[in-house]
Amino acid sequence: MTKYHVDLNCDLGESYGAWRIGNDEAILDYVTSANIACGYHAGDPLVMQRTVEMALRKGVAIGAHPGLPDLAGFGRREMAVSPEEVHAMVVYQVGALQGFIRSAGASLHHIKPHGALYNMAAINSSLAEAIALAVYRVSPEAVLYGLAGSELIKAGEKVGLKTAHEVFADRTYQQDGTLTPRSSTDALITDPQKAVEQVIRMVCEGKVRSQQGVDVAIKADTICIHGDGEHALEFARFITSTLKNQDIITQAV
Amino acid sequence: MTKYHVDLNCDLGESYGAWRIGNDEAILDYVTSANIACGYHAGDPLVMQRTVEMALRKGVAIGAHPGLPDLAGFGRREMAVSPEEVHAMVVYQVGALQGFIRSAGASLHHIKPHGALYNMAAINSSLAEAIALAVYRVSPEAVLYGLAGSELIKAGEKVGLKTAHEVFADRTYQQDGTLTPRSSTDALITDPQKAVEQVIRMVCEGKVRSQQGVDVAIKADTICIHGDGEHALEFARFITSTLKNQDIITQAV
Amino acid sequence: MTKYHVDLNCDLGESYGAWRIGNDEAILDYVTSANIACGYHAGDPLVMQRTVEMALRKGVAIGAHPGLPDLAGFGRREMAVSPEEVHAMVVYQVGALQGFIRSAGASLHHIKPHGALYNMAAINSSLAEAIALAVYRVSPEAVLYGLAGSELIKAGEKVGLKTAHEVFADRTYQQDGTLTPRSSTDALITDPQKAVEQVIRMVCEGKVRSQQGVDVAIKADTICIHGDGEHALEFARFITSTLKNQDIITQAV
Amino acid sequence: MTKYHVDLNCDLGESYGAWRIGNDEAILDYVTSANIACGYHAGDPLVMQRTVEMALRKGVAIGAHPGLPDLAGFGRREMAVSPEEVHAMVVYQVGALQGFIRSAGASLHHIKPHGALYNMAAINSSLAEAIALAVYRVSPEAVLYGLAGSELIKAGEKVGLKTAHEVFADRTYQQDGTLTPRSSTDALITDPQKAVEQVIRMVCEGKVRSQQGVDVAIKADTICIHGDGEHALEFARFITSTLKNQDIITQAV
Repeated sequence: MTKYHVDLNCDLGESYGAWRIGNDEAILDYVTSANIACGYHAGDPLVMQRTVEMALRKGVAIGAHPGLPDLAGFGRREMAVSPEEVHAMVVYQVGALQGFIRSAGASLHHIKPHGALYNMAAINSSLAEAIALAVYRVSPEAVLYGLAGSELIKAGEKVGLKTAHEVFADRTYQQDGTLTPRSSTDALITDPQKAVEQVIRMVCEGKVRSQQGVDVAIKADTICIHGDGEHALEFARFITSTLKNQDIITQAV
Repeated sequence: MTKYHVDLNCDLGESYGAWRIGNDEAILDYVTSANIACGYHAGDPLVMQRTVEMALRKGVAIGAHPGLPDLAGFGRREMAVSPEEVHAMVVYQVGALQGFIRSAGASLHHIKPHGALYNMAAINSSLAEAIALAVYRVSPEAVLYGLAGSELIKAGEKVGLKTAHEVFADRTYQQDGTLTPRSSTDALITDPQKAVEQVIRMVCEGKVRSQQGVDVAIKADTICIHGDGEHALEFARFITSTLKNQDIITQAV
Repeated sequence: MTKYHVDLNCDLGESYGAWRIGNDEAILDYVTSANIACGYHAGDPLVMQRTVEMALRKGVAIGAHPGLPDLAGFGRREMAVSPEEVHAMVVYQVGALQGFIRSAGASLHHIKPHGALYNMAAINSSLAEAIALAVYRVSPEAVLYGLAGSELIKAGEKVGLKTAHEVFADRTYQQDGTLTPRSSTDALITDPQKAVEQVIRMVCEGKVRSQQGVDVAIKADTICIHGDGEHALEFARFITSTLKNQDIITQAV
Repeated sequence: MTKYHVDLNCDLGESYGAWRIGNDEAILDYVTSANIACGYHAGDPLVMQRTVEMALRKGVAIGAHPGLPDLAGFGRREMAVSPEEVHAMVVYQVGALQGFIRSAGASLHHIKPHGALYNMAAINSSLAEAIALAVYRVSPEAVLYGLAGSELIKAGEKVGLKTAHEVFADRTYQQDGTLTPRSSTDALITDPQKAVEQVIRMVCEGKVRSQQGVDVAIKADTICIHGDGEHALEFARFITSTLKNQDIITQAV
């Protein structure tokens, strides 16, 4: 019998100065890889240091989560940044996080762009290539996380990086394999049971049922788990135990 | 006949976005090590990348120049930062610059704190130790530059780092070996000839004539050269040629 | 029979972007004046707008709460800023808040400096005068809040501003009328009953019992109420009802 | 004989901290209205204060020049900001500048959005209305400057503001009245003589010859004069004297 495995990743270290967000300590008990904010959209040096140490202590793979330079907008507002600027801001942020990783005697496992940068890199090949090249230069052994089937994944493969296709438990898909835009009323899956079922099918069968009713092929190397919000922890617990019951192994890519 | 040698260092990469400061390209022809701003008091990712590449091309040793998080104040205003905060902000900035250095296939040669951080670390042993520890953790092979005889140099030696005592050509000294405060009317040496003579004596004899008229022992591993201002380039040229004429070799520490 | 009255002020609008701090909506039911952050240590334009509107709706006097330009440090780290810089940053922040106040058809009631700026202005007469002059120029009719008996109050009176002496319910006092430094183990009053008793005595008798056991004269125009933390709301409710029972009227200065 | 008049406006106060841009003192001798940066894309409180005082001294009308919160990008990178965010950031920045204007005993003459905010407001009616409403609320008597015939001008008129149609001396126009995109090789007019001739025709005849060879109607209330760059001052001098020779009066709108 074939064993399936999948990575559960979560955005962490998003506190800043006196402001706290997320439930980092608790969520680290469920996920297998951590995307740590690097100070551009969230995170400050002390938060980064503590989050790296915490992830290391909990045995969770440590990743960089570079974003756009927009603290007030939490990196969620698209900006007309050039590929050259994106390349440099990714090198900067990944390098900064590596400082803490090296200080802790650990090593960088992966890079996942944040928010608007993630979304832009999914469809804009120039920005995707700028990110992939930055990662390749600063840490060629790291895994590049991107939206399953996106331009970012293609750019990572092209430059010679190991990549991880990311899928979402709580988002619906279109028949072309893209996510249903958040502006649609049917963009979100709010029933935890249905969300987990979608994940299991993506992991074990490589398929997802689109909103148009037809199955679409999808690669599911890693699942995005939310760390903030009322039910985040509850859902992390639920998906972890359900996957375990299905003999799906959760581990970093 | 014994040969003397000394390093000439200069702050570089202090432009930011649309704003330009300094004469980086030209000054790199005279100095032997470059202190590159890391985005906290000056410098942005693109400027950092270009400055690293330029220094590499010109064969100048590449150093990190971390500062206080105060862009509007250019890192020159002292802040009541804790040792823990200073440790984290140095790891962050040095790590960020290392991203560009690694991308360029080079290696980090030294770290010199900037402005108010440099001054505080010269006299505050807790902050000095926080910086030294940060450098040791993130880059144990790098040289720590600090004011000659300062707490920062002591902290570097204590933690096991190679250190470089820095002296100033254009500043006068007190009989206890400290710099004459800038608030004094006799703080600066404006005559280039006198400035270079002071340097030569510090390098070859390990002494400086204090404002009180007595000689003070001083170690001069590296000389701070200014990169900005009307006569910066001219003085860099003058000190370089004069040291050469005296058979003093200028090279990175 | 003489009626006593006192103002209860609270720092508000300290959220920033995606980060939330405080219980603004609830605390506004108890306080009589609001010190609204102006974007330098906390607060962003949207938060400022909403906080102004909320205070106006609840009938609470609206004040500006300018701080040092240090978001990561929440304006709590002292900085070596010049009087000229402080003057300009206060004009800037008060002006920005006035934009929202004017938009809402209201008017600015007071200014209270935040954190490290408040502390520095309490003892440094040059900074105190810079703040007082800024307030006088930008809003001569506003009340300047400062530590009771501090340099800031003196500077405000000197320039011709109405001032409000601020006292603390939960802090102990020294026999010279200053606050016991937070570094001392007896700096805080944790018993709500004792805290309120101290306030009542300050308001009605103009005296406070110092840690040295002797009474000290103190002027208590306004009391600082904390808006954040576990018991903040509870204490606000307790002090409000207790003062009411003592026939002390709470109203803006 | 009818006299023509036109306003010459220039972006000013774009220095920041230790960084200097522009030739403010000199250019103020030629322009009739100044757009002063408000700290978001450029400018800091001290620069704002000095620029307001300088413009007042030279008798030049004082305007606010609010931009996107992007210091590193000088406000030139478009950002996906919501109308609500834009409204609040304009109130904030205009309010801040008004602080300095009020301190100086002067009054706000106009508002002109900067860079990417100006461009977005020219074609996006929601953002244009958000800006117009912000200006109307914070300073109903001020003039709103926008690209001639743009959405911003329409939004200003709709809300009841006085508006000024802005034209460019050194840009070519399309037959639909829009500017030739900078990406085109024929976007710029580099010959000063031709640039001034285009301006004179726009002012006196209300027409501009488009790149397609046909005349287009255009309203020219104010002309954008650049303050930075090698030939900025020279051109300002040239256009001023040429307009004078043509009996066109330069004065604020």
